[in-house]
Amino acid sequence: MIVKRRPKILDPQGKAVEQGAKLLGFNNVSGTRIGKYIEFFVNSNDVNTVEKEIEEYAEKLLSNPIMEDFEYSYKKVDET
Amino acid sequence: MIVKRRPKILDPQGKAVEQGAKLLGFNNVSGTRIGKYIEFFVNSNDVNTVEKEIEEYAEKLLSNPIMEDFEYSYKKVDET
Repeated sequence: MIVKRRPKILDPQGKAVEQGAKLLGFNNVSGTRIGKYIEFFVNSNDVNTVEKEIEEYAEKLLSNPIMEDFEYSYKKVDET
Repeated sequence: MIVKRRPKILDPQGKAVEQGAKLLGFNNVSGTRIGKYIEFFVNSNDVNTVEKEIEEYAEKLLSNPIMEDFEYSYKKVDET
């Protein structure tokens, strides 16, 4: 899952890293924005349950719905 | 670009979020790991320059080479 700030919302972390980049001489880099990349397992065989759980997890814990959007994909893995 | 902790390295942030998930009743979720998803522009038409700059930016500022790996892709965009 990817969680990103909405385009209109400032990203101070990205700005800060980019200032460091300028100090190190990276003059071609711009528009740095830092979001989250999150991986996890959902233990269920039912697609509806899986999607519901992913979305609730995203809305309640992984993202801030006020200023972030999330997108996700998933694939089936064998039980271990 | 995606920056992730190596699989053997503990991810306390992911663990913490997952404990929150258990408290909220998400019992099917496990193995949460939180990395970074980073977007930026590189202002150059030369593929070698672009790749070198992306990799240096990743190694020096965006990732911690001791415990994180990074992967990236890029596409050409028109100048604006």
